[in-house]
Amino acid sequence: MYREKIKVLDCTIRDGGLINDHDFTFEFVRNVYRALSEAGVDYMEIGYRNSKKMFPDDKFGPWKFCDDDIVNRVIEGIESKTKISVMADVGRVDMDDVKPKKESPISMVRVATYIKEVDKAIAMVNEFSEKGYETTVNIMAISKALDVELNEALHQLEEECKANVIYIVDSFGALYQETIEYLVKKAKKIIKTKEIGIHNHNNQQLAFSNTIEAIIHGANYLDATVYGIGRGAGNCPIELLLGFLKNPKFDIRPILDVIQKEFLPLQKKIEWGYIIPYAITGMFDEHPRTAIAVRGSDKKDHYREFYDSIATSQDGLSDV
Amino acid sequence: MYREKIKVLDCTIRDGGLINDHDFTFEFVRNVYRALSEAGVDYMEIGYRNSKKMFPDDKFGPWKFCDDDIVNRVIEGIESKTKISVMADVGRVDMDDVKPKKESPISMVRVATYIKEVDKAIAMVNEFSEKGYETTVNIMAISKALDVELNEALHQLEEECKANVIYIVDSFGALYQETIEYLVKKAKKIIKTKEIGIHNHNNQQLAFSNTIEAIIHGANYLDATVYGIGRGAGNCPIELLLGFLKNPKFDIRPILDVIQKEFLPLQKKIEWGYIIPYAITGMFDEHPRTAIAVRGSDKKDHYREFYDSIATSQDGLSDV
Repeated sequence: MYREKIKVLDCTIRDGGLINDHDFTFEFVRNVYRALSEAGVDYMEIGYRNSKKMFPDDKFGPWKFCDDDIVNRVIEGIESKTKISVMADVGRVDMDDVKPKKESPISMVRVATYIKEVDKAIAMVNEFSEKGYETTVNIMAISKALDVELNEALHQLEEECKANVIYIVDSFGALYQETIEYLVKKAKKIIKTKEIGIHNHNNQQLAFSNTIEAIIHGANYLDATVYGIGRGAGNCPIELLLGFLKNPKFDIRPILDVIQKEFLPLQKKIEWGYIIPYAITGMFDEHPRTAIAVRGSDKKDHYREFYDSIATSQDGLSDV
Repeated sequence: MYREKIKVLDCTIRDGGLINDHDFTFEFVRNVYRALSEAGVDYMEIGYRNSKKMFPDDKFGPWKFCDDDIVNRVIEGIESKTKISVMADVGRVDMDDVKPKKESPISMVRVATYIKEVDKAIAMVNEFSEKGYETTVNIMAISKALDVELNEALHQLEEECKANVIYIVDSFGALYQETIEYLVKKAKKIIKTKEIGIHNHNNQQLAFSNTIEAIIHGANYLDATVYGIGRGAGNCPIELLLGFLKNPKFDIRPILDVIQKEFLPLQKKIEWGYIIPYAITGMFDEHPRTAIAVRGSDKKDHYREFYDSIATSQDGLSDV
């Protein structure tokens, strides 16, 4: 699948940071940046841009804040066309801290929002756009969105928002390819002046195939992570995505190197990937928080009990 | 996706047996059979039906031969509607050893064939059919088949073969959903009197999604294995497939139990799953034998070197 407009965005450090409180070592982050640069990946999302007033910086690693200073140190001296992205959550950014784009090493700001907060997200994105950044709005938990709400949000985004890209985010790893097709087609129909992006979670081993499905129907911004790292089941593995895309600008081999050198040792310390409780929350279209809790307990492999607890909590709907 | 005609065939012991010379313990096989029976899975493929004259039985476990006697001992005393299947390779079966179906615990025989040997496969399948067995022909390595050869083979199978099901087998884990769609649609067009089946390998984390894709386009026989076990990258995980299928006859929970009790310990002894060299052979549409070799060597994680060796061997085509 070769399409010039396709952009690959690596969110290894940002999404992976949710597993370890954003506490990757500086050298690890620099090695990932070097690998992505050599591989020709378009964007690297290096973390969140959260306000230090709202989160104590002794409890989190530097990739929860992504000061311009530390970003400058990561990229210094490495030849690269890879642009830097950060994620911003609605209400958690101190906008006075944000310099204009021309004074910052950051190129893109992505605002993640639930559909109910899309108004706030639009206001925030527009501020970043006015400061000169490329911007996106990432609609989280889209598998839970009512069709009527989604339609309205997409129209609003098309009409009021300066973002360059609107992302569909399968936060719970719950979607199958038919739903991805439906959502991307819908977004393409309403969103005429911006690109469509896709961000999938891998609970049911569908992150890569759902990314392909989104490409087929016209999504051009594709999220992935090295070796599929990410909270819980993780994300679409970037090495598989680069293997699928036929654009000669990409070189998979630096990614293979960094998997060998950095990610195999890391996987002995923190877990992600195909793990049954995350598969179960995906099947039930649930937030992974219950699976995260059980994986941290002495019942981490009591699968039937976990399954029954989720199934029962959904059965409870008949009470209302 | 609920469709009454859909049948799930578990090939845990048969495909998994390729990792360990078919040497699962008797208790392990019986526990898998019990779990599949409780889960309502339609078929369990318990191994190969190979001739002991051709293979020394001190070098392989009993699941390479699947005598009626041992099969009877596996199923004895367990309440079940799960039918037993065995796989037969062309030229490796002693047909004189095969009793009529009504004297055997085996219900189905599946003949695996490369497209070039389809004549032999048809002859063999027809013999099994005449003895009363349900039969299938599994077209291996279909990603390597020329269109003209495949068309001819499918016409021949439709006209000359008594098999109940014709399987599409992505032996190398090389196919993406668009090719699955193409192949299943083609098969459905030519094969009018038999069902279509699908067997995928998971090299690129596409076994499950490609199974869904095949279902969408009309395949009704679906192969899967517990926890995705199988040679190399393994197969479509049956727990994900049961989670997707909405047929109330299936119960996922006995599968979750057997994963916890039998497969987590097993995975500490033998490897399968998402492993980079298998992903690479999948991307290149190659037999996994080179990846198996490298995983058994002291270079098992030298990914770039392995990638280059496969890429170079394909570049060599310009020599011819």
